Amino acid sequence: TNNFFLMAGPCVVESESNVLRIAETVAKITDKFKIPYIFKASYRKANRSRIDSFSGIGDEKALKILGEVKKKFGLPIVTDIHSAPEAEMAAEYVDVLQIPAFLCRQTDLLVAAAKTGKFVNIKKGQFVSPDSMRFAAQKVVDSGNNNVILTDRGTMFGYHDLIVDFRAIPIMKSFGFPVVVDVTHSLQQPNQTSGVTGGRPEMIETIARAAIATGVDGLFMETHFNPAEALSDGANMLNLNHLEGLLERLVKIREVVKAF
Amino acid sequence: TNNFFLMAGPCVVESESNVLRIAETVAKITDKFKIPYIFKASYRKANRSRIDSFSGIGDEKALKILGEVKKKFGLPIVTDIHSAPEAEMAAEYVDVLQIPAFLCRQTDLLVAAAKTGKFVNIKKGQFVSPDSMRFAAQKVVDSGNNNVILTDRGTMFGYHDLIVDFRAIPIMKSFGFPVVVDVTHSLQQPNQTSGVTGGRPEMIETIARAAIATGVDGLFMETHFNPAEALSDGANMLNLNHLEGLLERLVKIREVVKAF
Amino acid sequence: TNNFFLMAGPCVVESESNVLRIAETVAKITDKFKIPYIFKASYRKANRSRIDSFSGIGDEKALKILGEVKKKFGLPIVTDIHSAPEAEMAAEYVDVLQIPAFLCRQTDLLVAAAKTGKFVNIKKGQFVSPDSMRFAAQKVVDSGNNNVILTDRGTMFGYHDLIVDFRAIPIMKSFGFPVVVDVTHSLQQPNQTSGVTGGRPEMIETIARAAIATGVDGLFMETHFNPAEALSDGANMLNLNHLEGLLERLVKIREVVKAF
Amino acid sequence: TNNFFLMAGPCVVESESNVLRIAETVAKITDKFKIPYIFKASYRKANRSRIDSFSGIGDEKALKILGEVKKKFGLPIVTDIHSAPEAEMAAEYVDVLQIPAFLCRQTDLLVAAAKTGKFVNIKKGQFVSPDSMRFAAQKVVDSGNNNVILTDRGTMFGYHDLIVDFRAIPIMKSFGFPVVVDVTHSLQQPNQTSGVTGGRPEMIETIARAAIATGVDGLFMETHFNPAEALSDGANMLNLNHLEGLLERLVKIREVVKAF
Repeated sequence: TNNFFLMAGPCVVESESNVLRIAETVAKITDKFKIPYIFKASYRKANRSRIDSFSGIGDEKALKILGEVKKKFGLPIVTDIHSAPEAEMAAEYVDVLQIPAFLCRQTDLLVAAAKTGKFVNIKKGQFVSPDSMRFAAQKVVDSGNNNVILTDRGTMFGYHDLIVDFRAIPIMKSFGFPVVVDVTHSLQQPNQTSGVTGGRPEMIETIARAAIATGVDGLFMETHFNPAEALSDGANMLNLNHLEGLLERLVKIREVVKAF
Repeated sequence: TNNFFLMAGPCVVESESNVLRIAETVAKITDKFKIPYIFKASYRKANRSRIDSFSGIGDEKALKILGEVKKKFGLPIVTDIHSAPEAEMAAEYVDVLQIPAFLCRQTDLLVAAAKTGKFVNIKKGQFVSPDSMRFAAQKVVDSGNNNVILTDRGTMFGYHDLIVDFRAIPIMKSFGFPVVVDVTHSLQQPNQTSGVTGGRPEMIETIARAAIATGVDGLFMETHFNPAEALSDGANMLNLNHLEGLLERLVKIREVVKAF
Repeated sequence: TNNFFLMAGPCVVESESNVLRIAETVAKITDKFKIPYIFKASYRKANRSRIDSFSGIGDEKALKILGEVKKKFGLPIVTDIHSAPEAEMAAEYVDVLQIPAFLCRQTDLLVAAAKTGKFVNIKKGQFVSPDSMRFAAQKVVDSGNNNVILTDRGTMFGYHDLIVDFRAIPIMKSFGFPVVVDVTHSLQQPNQTSGVTGGRPEMIETIARAAIATGVDGLFMETHFNPAEALSDGANMLNLNHLEGLLERLVKIREVVKAF
Repeated sequence: TNNFFLMAGPCVVESESNVLRIAETVAKITDKFKIPYIFKASYRKANRSRIDSFSGIGDEKALKILGEVKKKFGLPIVTDIHSAPEAEMAAEYVDVLQIPAFLCRQTDLLVAAAKTGKFVNIKKGQFVSPDSMRFAAQKVVDSGNNNVILTDRGTMFGYHDLIVDFRAIPIMKSFGFPVVVDVTHSLQQPNQTSGVTGGRPEMIETIARAAIATGVDGLFMETHFNPAEALSDGANMLNLNHLEGLLERLVKIREVVKAF
């Protein structure tokens, strides 16, 4: 397929039923559009703003639910890891190990992820230039693994806002790896007084259209049947009811762009 | 036509032959794609970094050349003004008065432009939020003129760089006026040690594609047969030889987006 | 005197009584500390966010009140101008012509101010690097006037915030002109949804102390007996009741620094 | 003592002789000024730009050298940790565990550091607002440890520059913990094309003076006899030959400020 791929799912594994229901729904929609789909959920959130924020249901329990999604729907899985020892543990269940943006310069973590042989999806730090992501990718390559994916999730713009710099797309594509835009986290509004990160989900389609038009290979997004009730990052998720219409429009832009 | 419109030309009126040649060439290309074309050139540059930078061939001489373009090719003309008294003078020759980004909050200038009854194209200051452009537009409307155009030309990102924030497109469109992205100035690299503004023209297509995909009504760009020899802003202009291919691709994205 | 100088007053000339009362009060306090004092007020505000914001009581009327301050208290006066023709008009009444930050690259304005022979206080644009201010200063010098003052009033940091970059102080001092920090405007919070600029006056002392410690030659501030009732910029002014205590502390830091 | 304290040393433990020599020299200078001195060096660098950058001589070997400094000169020691298991290991040798800026939101790391009972020095992420540091501190406090120190090391300003926002000092002091400014890392110039972080050491005194004047409790700096030969961060270190003169001036500003 010439289509873009999609990494999507809830932010964090909240429960088995919730995860299976989201995976099944997104899989049906992406099948319709022939969009390769990689299911995404975190088994733990390691960097919430506040210590009392929900951080997960237990690593092993959550990873097994991800394994269940893989088995039941035949979907590849992506999840994020936060320390070197987690790489091997998570690699048993998933196909893509994701390096969180804040950790994209942690050499030990990149090397540990690389050594599993899995794909390594490195999120661009909010403080890192697109050019500098070449050095993050190189740490994985130098560890003997060429399966790198680079994901832009927005760049710091003042304390309370992120901007997506679309010049990053051709720059990062020039390194030779697939490039993704994370259309939900890039709309976060960080450093809120409440200690709860805000968001601007009404802008998801704007960012997604620009990403497809500028030639990304994939999109990343968090989605939920009821973002208001999500246990993490609810403020910037896509309501799952809007996914089908959004993808339909994006696929049409992709067809045009791919023919250039 | 359902197509986007184009404001394009050299940065500044350098000579009659140069202006006529660019106008004729761009008009032929835009005709082919049924793109409404508004010829752009400044009759004077008022805010060059250095006092010894080229600033023009004389206001009246330059304005008459713009009038010549209008007569000869039947093109509407846009030019920028820098003080209130210039509004009336320029309005005799042109169809759209443009307010430079640094001056977008100068009430006297906006009011003077508004009172001519011409279209007023307000460039978003590099320091102004998309939301705040509603107040700039309102100054024109309150002066009895609803013919406002809003143009994004990038937002300050550190001392030496600009970013285009594409969230600005739906925000500014919500005010009810046509929205434009200036795909060449938004790639400027300001505050260079030399006192000569730099640029990244290789990114023009990236910005232009994202702009069309996110729904702008028009594009703005500076173009020249030989940017390296242009007397102003050469570092970020589009080489005219690349215009046709670029527009061909953009029109295809536009067709898809317009059908949504 | 080895002391720093102070440019201070209300934002705009609101009325004669208000202006005289502020001038007299500040003059008494600065006399006590042997701080050279330059009275500051605008005769017009040309770039308010909204067209319905208060912009002045009339240029001539306001300038005459400034002349009155000069005569009555023997104070030098600084005021800002917004277009070239204003330079000569204002120069009749004042000692320092101030170039607003948004206009710091407008060559005509700088040249017109320079040609009056008065001191020209150029505010650093929120989008301009300290290094680039050398070119703004040079436009005045090239017009035959070496009496340049450079004032930092904060640098854009996201849409809604400004930061003072104190590296600017040694950089701009290296050009050979007096350097000032504007401790009230640099605390503005621009681009508010209301169209009214916000501020953080509780931070004035922090910025002022850092400015003195890093070697500025002067401070600029707006002050009012009742900032909440000021007709412009009330959100970031210093309450006049706090001025004496603040200056007392700053003078002590100055003494130490000046002895280095 | 009413003086500020100093955390200083080479970036990373390069060799025993180098470490001992720096510690002895700085201790002599700080003794003279009655500045409480905490020796700083990393036993490993975990987030260098490139995988081939020098990252250390071996954790245990380096920690033992730090223990040697403590024993020989009676100095408290600060070092940074990068993953939860390191907390206990490092706590055997040092008095202050430092959380790197990129990792300041990693809950596991903060909790592990807190549980050692040692002081925890949290560096403000370049992407974190001063206000949000309250949540990082709270994670330590909620783990039963009130010995928190907060250190500002600059805030992202475009891809290639950092700014110190001195409003952070009163904001972070209001949380009730000692506040430090890191005067060398805050002058880094990140994301250089070479993959080697740059710096502006000529600005160290400017930042340090502003920090003392605005009321910090301590300063942090990296220093070396020959920064050009340092194996990490050489571009922004203070040359040790300049330390005595710098501290002499800072102590004088401190005396004035402390008396307010």
